[in-house]
Amino acid sequence: MSLDESNLTDAVIGRMEGCESPRLRQIMTSLIRHLHDFAREVELTEDEWFEGIRFLTATGRMCDDRRQEFILLSDTLGLSMLVDAINHRHRAGATDTTVFGPFFVEGAPALPHWANVSEGIPGTPCFVSGTVRDTGGRPIAGAVIDVWQTDGVEGLYDVQRREGGMYGRGRITTDAQGRYAFRTVQPVSYPIPDDGPVGKMLRKMGRHPWRPAHIHARIAHPAHETLTTHIFVKGDAYLASDAVFGVKDSLVVDFVQHPPGPTPDGGRSELRFSTAQYDFALAPA
Amino acid sequence: MSLDESNLTDAVIGRMEGCESPRLRQIMTSLIRHLHDFAREVELTEDEWFEGIRFLTATGRMCDDRRQEFILLSDTLGLSMLVDAINHRHRAGATDTTVFGPFFVEGAPALPHWANVSEGIPGTPCFVSGTVRDTGGRPIAGAVIDVWQTDGVEGLYDVQRREGGMYGRGRITTDAQGRYAFRTVQPVSYPIPDDGPVGKMLRKMGRHPWRPAHIHARIAHPAHETLTTHIFVKGDAYLASDAVFGVKDSLVVDFVQHPPGPTPDGGRSELRFSTAQYDFALAPA
Ligand SMILES: [Fe+2]
Ligand SMILES: [Fe+2]
Repeated sequence: MSLDESNLTDAVIGRMEGCESPRLRQIMTSLIRHLHDFAREVELTEDEWFEGIRFLTATGRMCDDRRQEFILLSDTLGLSMLVDAINHRHRAGATDTTVFGPFFVEGAPALPHWANVSEGIPGTPCFVSGTVRDTGGRPIAGAVIDVWQTDGVEGLYDVQRREGGMYGRGRITTDAQGRYAFRTVQPVSYPIPDDGPVGKMLRKMGRHPWRPAHIHARIAHPAHETLTTHIFVKGDAYLASDAVFGVKDSLVVDFVQHPPGPTPDGGRSELRFSTAQYDFALAPA
Repeated sequence: MSLDESNLTDAVIGRMEGCESPRLRQIMTSLIRHLHDFAREVELTEDEWFEGIRFLTATGRMCDDRRQEFILLSDTLGLSMLVDAINHRHRAGATDTTVFGPFFVEGAPALPHWANVSEGIPGTPCFVSGTVRDTGGRPIAGAVIDVWQTDGVEGLYDVQRREGGMYGRGRITTDAQGRYAFRTVQPVSYPIPDDGPVGKMLRKMGRHPWRPAHIHARIAHPAHETLTTHIFVKGDAYLASDAVFGVKDSLVVDFVQHPPGPTPDGGRSELRFSTAQYDFALAPA
């Protein structure tokens, strides 16, 4: 039998008769159907197909233990936020989720309240605090909050630098009243790494690579669904055009600016500083 | 504005307002829509999404100047043959096309008629000849035929071996009567390289990696459309289940078996040998 446009898709899908996983078969059936429909719909030329092969190959070549270009691709095509939305429906009362992103690193240090997660890093001093609650408003003690962010001037994560150690990362545990608190530098908006294939793609699509300033947070507690989210800085120029479509209104927080003087940790700042207050609500597990 | 399942896809597509290429915009619009529809349709979990990221990353890591895992992926998902079909419609009278594959190498030697493209390579001696014509049946002189194939025992292309030089490749030009002729070894069926992510995917899908025995041919002439195709060996066990869906009935050729004796090149074989005769027809440019 010769295969042509009319019967090829069914032939490829039919070749999975021996597949032992019904879920994999379901996923691959849908993937093959949509991939083929895409090629038919745009009548993909052979040169365009090869450009696609080259793009994926270059994207793969860009990946190493410090750079995940395929996650950037998923993020910039809105796939990451869509998967996030699909997997976090029906969470009435819980804090909104957003993208995990490619910059999380395991092994951030456990820190006491008001510890400085950006010790020695340039930027405006910033004091962040709040409470973690369940959707009924009850404080959650012992919730573990991983935070990660860029420096406060260049907008780079530690893993994006060739030199220097870890910074902008910490793990804080809520106290008996569900409270958390840390000191940092106020994050700044930053371009996602755009020196690779994804950056080139964005430019060709007429898009900028910027993300509005944010602090990442992942909050885990045995009795609750792990929350992966950001706190965004109100007033940022890129809130309406985040390169990875991660902004939700409920996550935009007022970073209140203060002149030099006493700080929420009981100390004193010789520099102007900011404070941000945000309460998280975790869905049940 | 917060984005959710209902408005995210349109937001991503809408971000291309500044795109200067209407064609890129059309392609990316369709790609994003189908990618998102796929994720929604199967309700892709976060673990499955990450498995996809890992798969693409591993596929990229497998690619080098001798191995193109993304082409293997496209081939095994039937995308390559679909693109081939879309781009070669309305070729009444012309030879059917099939996949280019990942094993072509530029710079094969130009050879006279009846030259041996598999000198010193194990396998059954095989003599291939025929005529290149236009769709009106007129012989085409000066058509340049690139042929490439595996050895005749292990089913490996030269580029798949760590050692040794080029073999199984040649460039033959048709004479004034449109004729071509070369000596080789009869190709054998072979598994596509299955020690990487694509091989693993095929196993999980319950599929085998085998391709039926074939000789690749690419035929170019200034006045005609370049033809990329195979000659398949009739009777091969994998003709009905080619791992890359490349078989067309019109391309299956009888490789006639002969006892030791005189050969079509005017010589003599001390071994049993085979002969194959195939006429190609090129569409107008
Ligand atoms: Fe970030
Ligand atoms: Fe081949």
